[in-house]
Amino acid sequence: MQDLNARLCDAVDAAFDRQVDFLSELTAHPSTRGNEQSAQEFMARQLTARGYALDRWQIDVAEIEHLPGFSPVLGPYEDAVNVVGTHHAHTGKGRSLILNGHIDVVPEGPLDMWDTPPFEPRVEDGWLYGRGGGDMKAGLASNLFALDALTACGLAPAGNVFFQSVVEEECTGNGALACLARGYKADAALIPEPFSEKLVTAQLGVLWFQVHLKGLPTHVAYAGTGSNAIEAAIPLIGALREMEHRWNAAERRTDDFAHMDHALNLNVGKIQGGDWASSVPAWCVFDVRMGLFPGQSIDDAKAEIETVILDAARQNAFLRNSLPEIVYHGFHAEGYALSQDSSARAVSAIDALDRAHCAVGGDALERTAITATTDARFFGLYADTPALVYGPRAEAIHGFNERVELESMRRVTKATAMFIADWCGVETR
Amino acid sequence: MQDLNARLCDAVDAAFDRQVDFLSELTAHPSTRGNEQSAQEFMARQLTARGYALDRWQIDVAEIEHLPGFSPVLGPYEDAVNVVGTHHAHTGKGRSLILNGHIDVVPEGPLDMWDTPPFEPRVEDGWLYGRGGGDMKAGLASNLFALDALTACGLAPAGNVFFQSVVEEECTGNGALACLARGYKADAALIPEPFSEKLVTAQLGVLWFQVHLKGLPTHVAYAGTGSNAIEAAIPLIGALREMEHRWNAAERRTDDFAHMDHALNLNVGKIQGGDWASSVPAWCVFDVRMGLFPGQSIDDAKAEIETVILDAARQNAFLRNSLPEIVYHGFHAEGYALSQDSSARAVSAIDALDRAHCAVGGDALERTAITATTDARFFGLYADTPALVYGPRAEAIHGFNERVELESMRRVTKATAMFIADWCGVETR
Repeated sequence: MQDLNARLCDAVDAAFDRQVDFLSELTAHPSTRGNEQSAQEFMARQLTARGYALDRWQIDVAEIEHLPGFSPVLGPYEDAVNVVGTHHAHTGKGRSLILNGHIDVVPEGPLDMWDTPPFEPRVEDGWLYGRGGGDMKAGLASNLFALDALTACGLAPAGNVFFQSVVEEECTGNGALACLARGYKADAALIPEPFSEKLVTAQLGVLWFQVHLKGLPTHVAYAGTGSNAIEAAIPLIGALREMEHRWNAAERRTDDFAHMDHALNLNVGKIQGGDWASSVPAWCVFDVRMGLFPGQSIDDAKAEIETVILDAARQNAFLRNSLPEIVYHGFHAEGYALSQDSSARAVSAIDALDRAHCAVGGDALERTAITATTDARFFGLYADTPALVYGPRAEAIHGFNERVELESMRRVTKATAMFIADWCGVETR
Repeated sequence: MQDLNARLCDAVDAAFDRQVDFLSELTAHPSTRGNEQSAQEFMARQLTARGYALDRWQIDVAEIEHLPGFSPVLGPYEDAVNVVGTHHAHTGKGRSLILNGHIDVVPEGPLDMWDTPPFEPRVEDGWLYGRGGGDMKAGLASNLFALDALTACGLAPAGNVFFQSVVEEECTGNGALACLARGYKADAALIPEPFSEKLVTAQLGVLWFQVHLKGLPTHVAYAGTGSNAIEAAIPLIGALREMEHRWNAAERRTDDFAHMDHALNLNVGKIQGGDWASSVPAWCVFDVRMGLFPGQSIDDAKAEIETVILDAARQNAFLRNSLPEIVYHGFHAEGYALSQDSSARAVSAIDALDRAHCAVGGDALERTAITATTDARFFGLYADTPALVYGPRAEAIHGFNERVELESMRRVTKATAMFIADWCGVETR
């Protein structure tokens, strides 16, 4: 095994320049929501060239909307295409594995806040810069080149491996859910999200909602008789901040998050209202993201959010007669804690990853609870599959000058190759 | 004169169905900013068909930007075209007159808040509904059909009359300013803005500014380390509201506005920020309109606004290191009070309008001070020309289901015809 690990590491090193080129090319595809096609086409070509059996399909809402974990859809799914490449083991003696990563990236924001264009990746001082480079195209690269390392050693996993490149992770998770619905199951899943080579043992739930406000528009000369829909949002945001404070109270925290004073972040992420400086604005819409602890019910959370917003609105002379509308249009994501999975498979998978991680860097695998969600919840909550989130170090994800550390990607790729060999076993090609 | 007035009234009545059709057709042109061309083309055809000498030109910023009253431009002027039709009097014995109106309308807002589509005008119970019907296409119709009434009586004004259909009234006034720069001058100007058949004796100044905020974006999981550009706007809006309160104090009011507790309205008319619910928003821009009293200096107002915003920003831990940017992109409009014009021409013009108004409705002409601006300021402040703002009754201007009362337009058209005959004198055609 030690000899195999050394050979896998050498193989990763030998291919690393190509891996960086691959990451750079993948990051150049601006795969924001609705624009994932060229990146998925690139992934499909890469998988096909390596001999994996390719499955590519458009998400069909009708096939997933009745499933637990489904989230209300943000826009049309005509361009929402998942890509899966399958390695069918000859012997089938080993355990199976899902290697999952998402191809979608969040919007890049104003270009003038980037040092260099977000979709023209560059490497500097050991970091690759670009939107999505860290979150999580380096993870997709790691999954693919880890498998390549086995190939380079004349080996293949002795269990089936499903390489998934999914859409919709950043807003609903419906891409990963569609993989489940299509029948992809395995003994474990690995998702190299960029959490600094730590194993994620718990993640929060996430709920998205939109608040629609209507004002009573008029010429500003008569502003006293109109009502400003933009300013009407201010007390509602205040009430939501108070709710955020209550939800973070010590007695509501689960074990994994007990040490965090403020795990649940409420974020007013987007606002749009009015169309003319001299017209009292007639409408305003703002988008909110709120975190939930594992075990917290989505339905209860929604009910409380609605109560908070409507109670605040009723205290406002204008809003009382024009109550806000609350629309759900994205994440209905429950929290998930791998730490609560005491199954033999989970223990065994974590052990295997721990060994691989130690073999690369020497230190024991650190555990972390994260204040975001990942697609891990689908495997863990709805398919009884331990889902290990473990990926490279990145910075400024969702921000400007997002970057991923290339040496960290190299280490994760090596650990992943060893983990695959350990978990699935190997067979000769 | 009484006989002439009666004949003019009959002529207005005789043509009134056509006038309503004209107003309806004009209102159907969706002449929001940048989209005024088809409406101006329609106006040009109407003026040419009546034999007026047509002048149509694109506003050239270089020709007006050095002039007093110029406002910073909102967008490109490629499509900003003024139309003027001139009646050259044969005898030239009478006084000259500018009949001014603006063709631009404010945005219609969300269609679902209109009972019927904003650019498909309809007549119901004596009102014409549609965006711009009141503000101020009924005024343009009144100007044109008042002249038609003289024509129908076999007469023409004995002084030159300049019929102006200008762009840019709703954001800068640069359309009216371009008419001045092109040399259009007269002994008086009439602008039938929709103020319920009252004579406007004072109007406020208006200043537009945009506040640009930058946040420190990050994944919401790390919201504590980022800073939300949307919520950063809230204390600044609060500080601006306090400034609005101070500016409205009794001791700062001018005579025309002494009786108004709240003449100066601050309006946050537009906001836009962020692009993703799960990203801490990196930027936010909001648009503000603020009123000024006549005589209040634009430069002083800007300086105070900047101080208020920056002082509030400095009290905020994040904004202190990322100060807001204030951009001026529209109205730099000074206030104007016809009531302060004691010239013989002003007195004479007001008397003439008073007589015409009485001849139509019997009551004396009411005076009003308005809490908005109009293009009257250009004539009054920068061309020494008394500018009478007097037009029909309209409701919900800048709002939904904007409407203008047709009988009011009829009365204003009659009064305008009589005013023209009185002010300019008449000659046979």
